[in-house]
Amino acid sequence: MLTIRCRCGFRFAQLLLALSLLASIPTALAEDGYELWQRYRPLGGGAIEQYRRSVQRIIVKGDSPTLRAVAQELNAAIARLLPGDSSREASDSAAALIAGTAQSDSSIAALRLDLGSLPAGGFVIRTLRLEGRNAIVIAGRDEVGVLYGAFHFLRLLQTLQPIDALDIREAPRIKLRMLDHWDNLDRSVERGYAGQSLWDWHKLPDYIDPRYVDYARANASIGINGTVLTNVNANATSLTPQYLEKSAALARVFRPYGIRVFLSARFSAPIEIGGLKTADPLDPGVRAWWQAKVAEIYRYIPDFGGFLVKANSEGQPGPQDYGRSHADGANMLGEALAPHGGVVIWRAFVYSNEQPDDRAKQAYTEFVPLDGKFRDNVLVQVKNGAIDFQPREPLHPLFGAMPRTPLMMEFQITKEYLGFATHLVYLGPLYEEVLRADTYRPRQGTTVASVIDGSAHSYRLTGIGGVANTGSDRNWSGSHFDQANWYVFGRLAWNPSLSSRSIAEEWVRLTFGNEPQIVQPVVAMMMSSHQAAVDYMTPLGLHHLMDRGHHYGPGPWIEGGPRADWTSVYFHRADARGIGFDRTSAGSNAVSQYAPPLAHIFGDVRRVPEDFLLWFHHVPWDYRTQSGRILWDELVHRYSRGAEHVTEMRKTWQTLQPYVDAERYAQIDAFLAIQAKEARWWRDACIAYFRTFSNRPLPAGYAEPGHSLAYYESLKFPFAPGHE
Amino acid sequence: MLTIRCRCGFRFAQLLLALSLLASIPTALAEDGYELWQRYRPLGGGAIEQYRRSVQRIIVKGDSPTLRAVAQELNAAIARLLPGDSSREASDSAAALIAGTAQSDSSIAALRLDLGSLPAGGFVIRTLRLEGRNAIVIAGRDEVGVLYGAFHFLRLLQTLQPIDALDIREAPRIKLRMLDHWDNLDRSVERGYAGQSLWDWHKLPDYIDPRYVDYARANASIGINGTVLTNVNANATSLTPQYLEKSAALARVFRPYGIRVFLSARFSAPIEIGGLKTADPLDPGVRAWWQAKVAEIYRYIPDFGGFLVKANSEGQPGPQDYGRSHADGANMLGEALAPHGGVVIWRAFVYSNEQPDDRAKQAYTEFVPLDGKFRDNVLVQVKNGAIDFQPREPLHPLFGAMPRTPLMMEFQITKEYLGFATHLVYLGPLYEEVLRADTYRPRQGTTVASVIDGSAHSYRLTGIGGVANTGSDRNWSGSHFDQANWYVFGRLAWNPSLSSRSIAEEWVRLTFGNEPQIVQPVVAMMMSSHQAAVDYMTPLGLHHLMDRGHHYGPGPWIEGGPRADWTSVYFHRADARGIGFDRTSAGSNAVSQYAPPLAHIFGDVRRVPEDFLLWFHHVPWDYRTQSGRILWDELVHRYSRGAEHVTEMRKTWQTLQPYVDAERYAQIDAFLAIQAKEARWWRDACIAYFRTFSNRPLPAGYAEPGHSLAYYESLKFPFAPGHE
Repeated sequence: MLTIRCRCGFRFAQLLLALSLLASIPTALAEDGYELWQRYRPLGGGAIEQYRRSVQRIIVKGDSPTLRAVAQELNAAIARLLPGDSSREASDSAAALIAGTAQSDSSIAALRLDLGSLPAGGFVIRTLRLEGRNAIVIAGRDEVGVLYGAFHFLRLLQTLQPIDALDIREAPRIKLRMLDHWDNLDRSVERGYAGQSLWDWHKLPDYIDPRYVDYARANASIGINGTVLTNVNANATSLTPQYLEKSAALARVFRPYGIRVFLSARFSAPIEIGGLKTADPLDPGVRAWWQAKVAEIYRYIPDFGGFLVKANSEGQPGPQDYGRSHADGANMLGEALAPHGGVVIWRAFVYSNEQPDDRAKQAYTEFVPLDGKFRDNVLVQVKNGAIDFQPREPLHPLFGAMPRTPLMMEFQITKEYLGFATHLVYLGPLYEEVLRADTYRPRQGTTVASVIDGSAHSYRLTGIGGVANTGSDRNWSGSHFDQANWYVFGRLAWNPSLSSRSIAEEWVRLTFGNEPQIVQPVVAMMMSSHQAAVDYMTPLGLHHLMDRGHHYGPGPWIEGGPRADWTSVYFHRADARGIGFDRTSAGSNAVSQYAPPLAHIFGDVRRVPEDFLLWFHHVPWDYRTQSGRILWDELVHRYSRGAEHVTEMRKTWQTLQPYVDAERYAQIDAFLAIQAKEARWWRDACIAYFRTFSNRPLPAGYAEPGHSLAYYESLKFPFAPGHE
Repeated sequence: MLTIRCRCGFRFAQLLLALSLLASIPTALAEDGYELWQRYRPLGGGAIEQYRRSVQRIIVKGDSPTLRAVAQELNAAIARLLPGDSSREASDSAAALIAGTAQSDSSIAALRLDLGSLPAGGFVIRTLRLEGRNAIVIAGRDEVGVLYGAFHFLRLLQTLQPIDALDIREAPRIKLRMLDHWDNLDRSVERGYAGQSLWDWHKLPDYIDPRYVDYARANASIGINGTVLTNVNANATSLTPQYLEKSAALARVFRPYGIRVFLSARFSAPIEIGGLKTADPLDPGVRAWWQAKVAEIYRYIPDFGGFLVKANSEGQPGPQDYGRSHADGANMLGEALAPHGGVVIWRAFVYSNEQPDDRAKQAYTEFVPLDGKFRDNVLVQVKNGAIDFQPREPLHPLFGAMPRTPLMMEFQITKEYLGFATHLVYLGPLYEEVLRADTYRPRQGTTVASVIDGSAHSYRLTGIGGVANTGSDRNWSGSHFDQANWYVFGRLAWNPSLSSRSIAEEWVRLTFGNEPQIVQPVVAMMMSSHQAAVDYMTPLGLHHLMDRGHHYGPGPWIEGGPRADWTSVYFHRADARGIGFDRTSAGSNAVSQYAPPLAHIFGDVRRVPEDFLLWFHHVPWDYRTQSGRILWDELVHRYSRGAEHVTEMRKTWQTLQPYVDAERYAQIDAFLAIQAKEARWWRDACIAYFRTFSNRPLPAGYAEPGHSLAYYESLKFPFAPGHE
């Protein structure tokens, strides 16, 4: 910036001008986040020379759309990663990178890599000698496998891994790896904090935004192979020809990248757009309508994936409106989809308007009796926990409890309950904690991951879905760090055994570069960030304390309104004696839905992990926690610890300024300042509220809330984003 | 793109690879439209050497935020326009570009340029000898004048104008040059077709999007000096401290660029956020509330511009709710703003829910009796025509009819009625037609421009506002060509005598470069585009034929609903005899609101310009038009001509592919395809509809509509964007 304070004459001005010119010229490639983890900046470091020697030519035979995409990606990426490589040789003896399938390239077929035994999407990457020259072969079980292999190889380069002795054999562990978009036809996004929907419905099908291709590239690079375009709170209009034509245009863009399009189905569509008088799943007219509608959809989208359905939940229509079961509803749709190869993904996130029982119990109560009653092209999609994507929840009791029904995992990538786009909360540890949780069904060691990858119960279909955090914001996800949540979801969907730490490190290298000065501190920030958010929002197993409707900021005082379980007081149950939801046999007995060993652990206040203490128990304020502090003091401690951690994260970030471009540095710093402010707000508001029950002073050394409880209760945010 | 169809071995693949590498490497600076007319690409052509010789050094003395912005812009722009200029000399004798005011730079003061006689924002640019060296001086009457001069100078370079003998003296002709944002607090934009609001209210004031600076730069470059942040259909929440803090943060960003922040004021705010029982403008409590509120606003925004008010119109509250006049309401707010230097912009776009008279007459009827009754810090803002931003309207009868009240012009930049973002419709000719229209008040030759620039009636305050077309879309305006509408608005606001053609040429050079192969054809497309849109939508003075609510597509059949004047049939009045709205003395007598000579012209079916024929007259189907065709045939002809013109525009565009980058070429081509389809849709639907009245065949050689009238009537677009 040019700042001339003195009457210094022209010489000084000239010097400043020269500096200013340097500073003002825009960099060639803006670091605005648009490129995600596919930035392909020129590589540095000692590995480069080896890379140059090993990739002198790129050979992709074949002419399919997918193989063309492979060739384009490899060529563009390597030209950018290894720029100015004028020494790249064109002779036949030059070291080659060869990508293809056994069908597309006879030299790959000749290698006999046993590709056929790999699951769909699998690939092999080998460094070898081929026809007398050095080569690296990326061989796919199928064409999409080649694409996945190509992205895998590029990731190796981007993270500076050695490639001189590659012997990689990879395949996805889960078949359906899905993004669920809660995107409405008016381009709003329910629980979206990254602008409008990516889908510009109004201009589709005639205008194909180039961004749709980049969406497909990004997803394919982490193995996502399905996308539900529309909100589970569905509008039947999305199934009309006008909109099917639009969805078909998107499907055409995504197809070369191995991504199939799914749609949400509104159960009452036969009435709303079909002109029928009923949507009863046992009504022959209704069944015929869906069969015809599905056949119509496949005329538009020949590889249509199927329907995602939210039925009889939060006011959505469903089979229970006609006295039928979830299985009746799902099977009717499954019957219509089966001839075309489509599936039904039926959500288990249900709670009835009338049911007065603990909401945590309702999905299990309704679905376990239906185990074995679903068609074989139906999957049941279960949220990671039994309430609703809270900052931390114990595993959902359905996992392991439906051995004859393929259960899909539903994670939330968008941070509805975790600070929207401005809070740095890396969700890897949350996902990992759930995937590694032990169901004890049928025996100890049966993890949630083994349920959803099908190994525990030999599911024929397997799947995992993440509620997308994408939108029209330039950086896709609302913040740079939220890109990591999209990334870690995809990587865990590919292999649920990966560690969230290793994925974090991978993402940081792709996103900020390989300098150790930035990689290690940022990974540490990310890995600690989820616990910090739990601490400053809902420590010790508390849940659902956010403000009503938009879920922005604290609202532990929320009560009244249409439903008890849409309030905070229903969940925290604070009173003069203590705090927490008694889900033991003395309370709602939700613990009984877990396998007996787990039920015993959760049901025992001395054995339950303290992170879930108040989830399962109503605990006296003076209960002695593991730290030696009484519960009230521990609660204040954790709230304070969480808020302080954010301040520390920001300090860490500020030491990293030399290693980050100015644009991303500034936005992240501003967002961390917002997070620090809001973490403090959460802490202060919750302490100010809960102290009215505990009637105890804050432990020594802990700051008083900055304002009165009345002040916190008075804050209103009617225009907070993402509200349905 | 890599396409390998043959079993050609590696040599052919290598060749293709080399080509592919070239194609796949992204260009250094994407042409995605983000940079608007400030692209600053390296200049070519013979002028460059002269530019290099003339700008060897850049000298901006002074340390104010505005002068820093000047220095930054000049340095960054010239480094990009004249790159790699290693010969730029640093010696004192090098030719200098010097920018400043007489106060900031004594060498400028010494030139005695009579800057003080210029209006605010004025500047001088001179090529001269200064202290023994060649120099170009950009001297501002004030600091913002320097900024305007700097942008003017850069525009000269960008458009390859000679700079060896500059002698420019410029100043804005209109004082308030405003963008009106119809942006809501939930970030939706009423009648917005470019994504969400630019204002990220939720993250303000803590996060300052760098885009806010680019918004200010773009506006300052065309002389805009005010922005109304919020929708005229206002929410009182925008006046609460929570939101004033956010608006203040934007004002801080805009201030160095000479842009003042205004807010819309909801007339009932004293009730809604003030807790009063009334908003009666004569109530002392209400007056005191507004005075305190305004004082509070100025504490947040010391240079706050004032209020824009829509009152007693389309259901908005206003002084008439209490039996008071528009003057009573405006003066109350004016009284509150006066001590702080703020103004009230009171909209004349009013029509009452009860008034059964021709809506075109209501503003005149209500406002003319109030002439002279407004405080001297009140302006009345009048839309260009009396209905509502129709594709073409005759001048509003208020212009010239309120000599003692400063009338502001309100243009619509966003294309609510002109095809949203996908239609190429350059609005310069529309604006120019209105500005040059003759009011005949008090005498022939008194143009609308002379009314709003104050010269006709010696207004002390003058202003012009444009309803912004900006949004979160990467290209700001929803399409590349819509940027030209923002641009031409700003340029005409600076000088309403400029020609829309010269501005189009200027914009094309800034946006697509100076090659004559592209400049002339694109200017021709732009200049003919407005007439084409009028032809395919509402030819011959027809108006308000669009579909209800969202205004997307044709809806001449719209009838019923809450108000007659929210239907199409109210406006076109087609029947078996003829078509058109009789506004002569035999009809609504709206013509009588114009000056007598103009009333005679408009009221005489033989003298009225045919472009306004059906605006003022109900004309028989067999009326002989100037072309010799009967009216029905002329109607079909014009509809057809408009649709065909779009097809021709697309053909022209396709010949320009060699001169345009791939990214912009493709999007514009896709949008022109949409426009061609929709122009045909408009033509066919309107012909199919109106033929049911005319009962005549299409003239020979004109294509039948593609579908039945029932088909067109059945089309529904419930999610069209921009709906309020």
